[in-house]
Amino acid sequence: MLDCAIIGGGPAGLTAGLYTTRGGLDDVIMFEKGMPGGQITSSSEIENYPGATARNLSGMDFMIPWLEQCQRFGLKHEMSEVTRVSRNEDGTFVIHKSDGTTNTAKSVIVATGSTPKRAGFIGEDKYFGRGVSTCATCDGFFYKGKEVAIVGGGDTAMEEALYLAKICTKVYIIHRRDTFRSAPNTIERVKTTPNIEILFNASPQEVLGDAMGVTGIRVVFNDGSTRQIDAPGLFVFVGRDVNNEVLIQEDGSFLCETNNAGEVIVDINMNTSIPGLYATGDLRISAPKQVVSAAGDGSIAALQAIAYVDKISHR
Amino acid sequence: MLDCAIIGGGPAGLTAGLYTTRGGLDDVIMFEKGMPGGQITSSSEIENYPGATARNLSGMDFMIPWLEQCQRFGLKHEMSEVTRVSRNEDGTFVIHKSDGTTNTAKSVIVATGSTPKRAGFIGEDKYFGRGVSTCATCDGFFYKGKEVAIVGGGDTAMEEALYLAKICTKVYIIHRRDTFRSAPNTIERVKTTPNIEILFNASPQEVLGDAMGVTGIRVVFNDGSTRQIDAPGLFVFVGRDVNNEVLIQEDGSFLCETNNAGEVIVDINMNTSIPGLYATGDLRISAPKQVVSAAGDGSIAALQAIAYVDKISHR
Repeated sequence: MLDCAIIGGGPAGLTAGLYTTRGGLDDVIMFEKGMPGGQITSSSEIENYPGATARNLSGMDFMIPWLEQCQRFGLKHEMSEVTRVSRNEDGTFVIHKSDGTTNTAKSVIVATGSTPKRAGFIGEDKYFGRGVSTCATCDGFFYKGKEVAIVGGGDTAMEEALYLAKICTKVYIIHRRDTFRSAPNTIERVKTTPNIEILFNASPQEVLGDAMGVTGIRVVFNDGSTRQIDAPGLFVFVGRDVNNEVLIQEDGSFLCETNNAGEVIVDINMNTSIPGLYATGDLRISAPKQVVSAAGDGSIAALQAIAYVDKISHR
Repeated sequence: MLDCAIIGGGPAGLTAGLYTTRGGLDDVIMFEKGMPGGQITSSSEIENYPGATARNLSGMDFMIPWLEQCQRFGLKHEMSEVTRVSRNEDGTFVIHKSDGTTNTAKSVIVATGSTPKRAGFIGEDKYFGRGVSTCATCDGFFYKGKEVAIVGGGDTAMEEALYLAKICTKVYIIHRRDTFRSAPNTIERVKTTPNIEILFNASPQEVLGDAMGVTGIRVVFNDGSTRQIDAPGLFVFVGRDVNNEVLIQEDGSFLCETNNAGEVIVDINMNTSIPGLYATGDLRISAPKQVVSAAGDGSIAALQAIAYVDKISHR
């Protein structure tokens, strides 16, 4: 039986692996079906992780050394797809994998993250990470003193527009409806911010670019008219999928408590509603969606798991 | 008026400075009376910060690049001692400094940390960071497969003993009383862990060492007898001072809610009970006391402060 199973190999999962093994847990496997590193590996540049001081550091180059460091203390990486985590009557956990095999574990740290949705316009995938972004906190600063456009009209789009308006000279909001779906006072702040221009009834048709990245966005309105916005940055906020599938049980219920958005409810120590089960990173409520905060979550959950495994082994 | 005042220049304060300025807050000062870097700078080695992959990296060498990186986006560092943070009727804050001057700020992030107490035995200061430690999570692994001793008998000493017992071949607990002051089931776990030996009615008299660091501990019992323990590591858990002085008001009350230990009560977003006031790192409840988690806290508080400042400026 594993002391701890870690599901997901981004910053939260890797850090949880470092801390659990360095803290003396014996058998710890990090299940990650793809390359470890997480969502940040698709970024062309990261400059807000404290201690990563190199300039023009790509997300991929930034994450590559993590796996070796985090495996230095005995963490094992298994390239399997976990389909479900279930719980036995004695409180231990079963890790179900897509090849039909299982592992059992005394504790589980879930770090499967979330996946921003794509809006589906021409050039979106081609320029993703080179001018098309889904994170204002991460990438907004790269457009300091420049103009950017946003696609979306929900809470996140509104909040990120306000964030970007403090950095960029102008923020265009491209929204397919004629009203926003967000808190009224947030909408009011967006509407009264002088350097935000709202394009209602509009959709991005194509993102334009060259070898350096994005140069502009062609917008089409519901009446068929078009407009070209010359801006080097386009932020897409059309929702995200919380990767909580592994917590869904055979009867369709979640293994632990989640909110309406499907995010796992945790306390300040990353405890879920189930003893021995922890949720970290973008999967949890109130996630700031930053590498450094996800890594912090991983360390916190690991220390909780170590104490939990010690406690149950003394029963 | 400052957009944000940051009190303290360790990992939490520096990261808060990076995120607030990169997020577009205009005037941000980090008040740190000494060298920025925090408690970790007195460690001889750090190997559990993800991304810091160099071997034999000292805490000082690890932190030196942070200041430059975190100042890259406009953070100012003022070498002043903050004596108190108070709040005006309009919700803004006043930063009182030891030279009698003040600053005003729309938001405040407190990151003053905590200070582990010293036990007061001979050699404690001399070998601090070279075999004498106050953090099992940080330094326990350096004694994998070796013996260590612990000084103390409270909750932290018990929990850290259990943590170290999973890594080290043997853990001696040196406690001056004949009973522990901790939760009964924690004490029971300590007593039933085979590789923990308890020395009641005992105090460390002197830590012994050579040019490489600690080699042993001379223990004196209450009856006057002595015993020498040959171990390369000594962990001191005799309490810590939470550096919350800046939150104490003229009438002796705290500016925001704290627990009985003087730690600031925060929610998962580092919000205190006062709008616009955030607490991060070792100062807050449930702090894991790790560089990566403190840095995570700093990023979280900064994002909250940015949104808060935007909100009040639209009033």
